[in-house]
Amino acid sequence: MVADHLSVTFAALADPTRRAILARLTAGECSVTDLAEPFAMSMPAISKHLRVLERAGLVARGRQAQWRPCRINAAPLKEVAAWAESYRHIWEQRLDRLEAHLQELQAKEKSHGRKSRRK
Amino acid sequence: MVADHLSVTFAALADPTRRAILARLTAGECSVTDLAEPFAMSMPAISKHLRVLERAGLVARGRQAQWRPCRINAAPLKEVAAWAESYRHIWEQRLDRLEAHLQELQAKEKSHGRKSRRK
Repeated sequence: MVADHLSVTFAALADPTRRAILARLTAGECSVTDLAEPFAMSMPAISKHLRVLERAGLVARGRQAQWRPCRINAAPLKEVAAWAESYRHIWEQRLDRLEAHLQELQAKEKSHGRKSRRK
Repeated sequence: MVADHLSVTFAALADPTRRAILARLTAGECSVTDLAEPFAMSMPAISKHLRVLERAGLVARGRQAQWRPCRINAAPLKEVAAWAESYRHIWEQRLDRLEAHLQELQAKEKSHGRKSRRK
């Protein structure tokens, strides 16, 4: 079974090093050597992460023979954002319910306070 | 190494069946049996997917002994949306560049058209 595009993207993002690589690439394209530096990781380890990101279309490599710079391609992240945003009504519903519950509690608290004072 | 929260969430979302379960749960809570139905999947297979979603905090189970209804918890999806949205400037930059490139091409096309007519 071929994994669907969104699953491949999510799997690529399920790793803090790969997300850190993407964050680094927002500053501009750079070489694999530059990318490897802050991670204290071997070049093969970084290259493996890059291949996962490339397969998901999140990173593209330049075509220069000597220096194949890496750059971010944010198009799949736009899809991720759109997918997650489609659940906004669910998390907002929950906030609305929490707010309603809190107001109910506060109303009870007040009416209880009044009754206590009346005694 | 304990996987960070966002990695656990992305890994849970990297499967079309698990995303379909979440989509189903936006209609309201339901039993595992009801959830299994549209997927033509065995109950153990669905239960395994549910455990992955529960571990990521995307699904919560009710406490009734007989019937433990599943419900969606969209809070981790809000985090995913916020994370992906933080790259919006990158995908918008790219659209801006594409637009600028297109306008340049059209301008060249026009000036070329004028020169051709002058001949």
